[in-house]
Amino acid sequence: MAGAGRSRDGRILSVPSRAHDATTARTSVDVHVARVLELLAPLTPRPTIILPLAQALDRVTAAETVSPIELPPFRNSQMDGFAVRAADVASAPVSLPIAGEVVAAPGTPAELRPGTAVRIMTGAPVPDGADTIVPVEDTLEANDHVSIARGRRVGEYIREPGSDLHIGDVLLPAGQLLASRHLGALAAAGLTTVAVRSAVRVAVISTGSELVAPGEPLGPGQIPDANGVALAAAARSIGADVVFEGRVRDDADGLEAMLDAAAALGAELILTSGGVSMGDHEVVRDVLEPRGAHVDVLAMQPGGPQAVASWPASRGAAAIPIVCFPGNPVSSQLSFELFVAPTLRELAGRLAAARETRVLDSPLRSIPGRRQFLRGRRTPGGGVTTVGGPSSHLVAALAASDVLIVVPENVTELAKGDSVETWEL
Amino acid sequence: MAGAGRSRDGRILSVPSRAHDATTARTSVDVHVARVLELLAPLTPRPTIILPLAQALDRVTAAETVSPIELPPFRNSQMDGFAVRAADVASAPVSLPIAGEVVAAPGTPAELRPGTAVRIMTGAPVPDGADTIVPVEDTLEANDHVSIARGRRVGEYIREPGSDLHIGDVLLPAGQLLASRHLGALAAAGLTTVAVRSAVRVAVISTGSELVAPGEPLGPGQIPDANGVALAAAARSIGADVVFEGRVRDDADGLEAMLDAAAALGAELILTSGGVSMGDHEVVRDVLEPRGAHVDVLAMQPGGPQAVASWPASRGAAAIPIVCFPGNPVSSQLSFELFVAPTLRELAGRLAAARETRVLDSPLRSIPGRRQFLRGRRTPGGGVTTVGGPSSHLVAALAASDVLIVVPENVTELAKGDSVETWEL
Repeated sequence: MAGAGRSRDGRILSVPSRAHDATTARTSVDVHVARVLELLAPLTPRPTIILPLAQALDRVTAAETVSPIELPPFRNSQMDGFAVRAADVASAPVSLPIAGEVVAAPGTPAELRPGTAVRIMTGAPVPDGADTIVPVEDTLEANDHVSIARGRRVGEYIREPGSDLHIGDVLLPAGQLLASRHLGALAAAGLTTVAVRSAVRVAVISTGSELVAPGEPLGPGQIPDANGVALAAAARSIGADVVFEGRVRDDADGLEAMLDAAAALGAELILTSGGVSMGDHEVVRDVLEPRGAHVDVLAMQPGGPQAVASWPASRGAAAIPIVCFPGNPVSSQLSFELFVAPTLRELAGRLAAARETRVLDSPLRSIPGRRQFLRGRRTPGGGVTTVGGPSSHLVAALAASDVLIVVPENVTELAKGDSVETWEL
Repeated sequence: MAGAGRSRDGRILSVPSRAHDATTARTSVDVHVARVLELLAPLTPRPTIILPLAQALDRVTAAETVSPIELPPFRNSQMDGFAVRAADVASAPVSLPIAGEVVAAPGTPAELRPGTAVRIMTGAPVPDGADTIVPVEDTLEANDHVSIARGRRVGEYIREPGSDLHIGDVLLPAGQLLASRHLGALAAAGLTTVAVRSAVRVAVISTGSELVAPGEPLGPGQIPDANGVALAAAARSIGADVVFEGRVRDDADGLEAMLDAAAALGAELILTSGGVSMGDHEVVRDVLEPRGAHVDVLAMQPGGPQAVASWPASRGAAAIPIVCFPGNPVSSQLSFELFVAPTLRELAGRLAAARETRVLDSPLRSIPGRRQFLRGRRTPGGGVTTVGGPSSHLVAALAASDVLIVVPENVTELAKGDSVETWEL
């Protein structure tokens, strides 16, 4: 984490001509966004897995599903009333003997004898021979006869098989995020499983000798590791499957062992935090730069130092993409949201995080040449107020926020009442 | 499911004075909403359980959480640069010898000797004796000395312990739905667990002799049970814990056995579908009315027949509330959303389903005296279009919908361009 001769943002301190320029030598956020997108491209398309309906909630369909049956499967009544033949009531008013009732239970369908009526309930199978349903509201009963006041149309109040969906019709499209109503429709079509995209298997590794496991006593200069918990939960919350979580000191062998473990557990994407800035003891850089990592300092605050890399997969599969975040908890969580979350959301069929324009409740300042991501809270009437300051250590302030406020690179000051772009957290 | 002498909505067919009135003898939707709310009141407050952070995503905090430590825990640098004493640079420009660097790793804190500067990185502990940080941008280095152009304020660019949160300050409020940033803040404070509300334990029971398990071959008059899958998934999707799912024919003994099983498994809320309308073979009514069930027919479409009841808990606990829905899949899913979901969402700390006003893309008709819930899909520009018809058998149309369109009891016709209330699904 420390440095000598170079600052974290990589500028050589002994070169006066650059030492006072806070904007040069920094890469645009958009360049790194595109770089990570390209790195993660091999995660698409997702392999398909078949899940029982009870396990498929919030998964996304891998293919279009067509109905294997007619929905509804049989001709049934849309009303409580009487099944008759339209011809028998054409000369209405008429009175027909009630020849029985249809029970909505398995068995051979009832049959309607000409000149009679059969009592029927909503959803019950229409008896053979009947071609119209007279709603009970339009009838009078006496002495086992039903009086029908007027003639009826053939087919009235009858649900034909397939009136909801025919065999082979599309029941669900590909890419459908499965909510309860979708699972209900699959079950109604007699299906017990559904083909969904496999979840992306993610590994999360926190680095830094200053880190201790949450709950352990803190020595001088030590802090609990918040990044592991936060990044793993963030990945899970948008449909990823976290297969490995590790924490390692600034020790190259330890990090290599963790990366191998993540690979052995089938990780398809590895996220690291810490060890990626410009000091002498940057373990992520030490391990990954010799293997071709691309390390960069971005024109953003917080979260300047970032990297992309890859690690050999076990059993000769394709290399595993690694996205390396800085170690400050706010920086790493913000970086996840900015660079990785959009891809994971899309692969899991989730909506992108809502972005809207809101009105600042208070003025703010920003560093020239940096895209600043401030933490904010929405206020009534389309406003937004900042929560805490710009510093990357304010984890409690982040927890108290519900949006990020995005301040463009070329903006250094905003007044109360100015409009800003906000991203929903 | 069938009836003789009475229609499903309970009107005696041989009484002409009521037979033509579609609106009398129906209870307001709001009355039943209040009835279910009262029935479910004992589910609040929720017992508290302690969960590891890794299992607490999307749970809701049971109590306010305060920070057990200062955040940050120690005095550290907000910038890459040099730690100095303000007094030593008061006579700037000055040049100070670089006496070392601070590594952000455990160990005894470095100490700053008067008249020297110590190189420091963002987040590293400020050495004893130093009272200000000079950002690297404001310095020049040569021959192991650093030149500082102007004087600095005491405390500048130093993060004091507790500058994010002090010991005892509120880290998270009670009732907080836990997202990744909240879990990250808890971990940063050195916490490993969090007190959350226990999930409501729900049992789902489908009734009807016409039902077969999804995937079983369909005989005449048989349909797959969609309600079990849909209601269980709907309950899970808003934070409930589904502890029992059953399906039973129109058989009183079978239903009683299922209710006992649900009780034995600790269900706190039982949801049934089917068997609650006005026929002779209504198994839910047959079993529960002698035990004090309140059966009603509501002024709504779909979903008229509804009931509330209770069942003895095992081991003498309080009676278990039962909410009984009609059997049609669309009716039961809509009834869950209307009567039960709001309470379950609140107990799980979830937001209520969004309700907004939209403009109809097409005209529609509705039955006088019924609150109609049509299935709809949002269209660009604040519009909404109906999907499928009003009939309660259209499960595929429900799956293709993203909102419910609510048509009030006193409205029988709406024109294209009229405004309607929509509920997000």
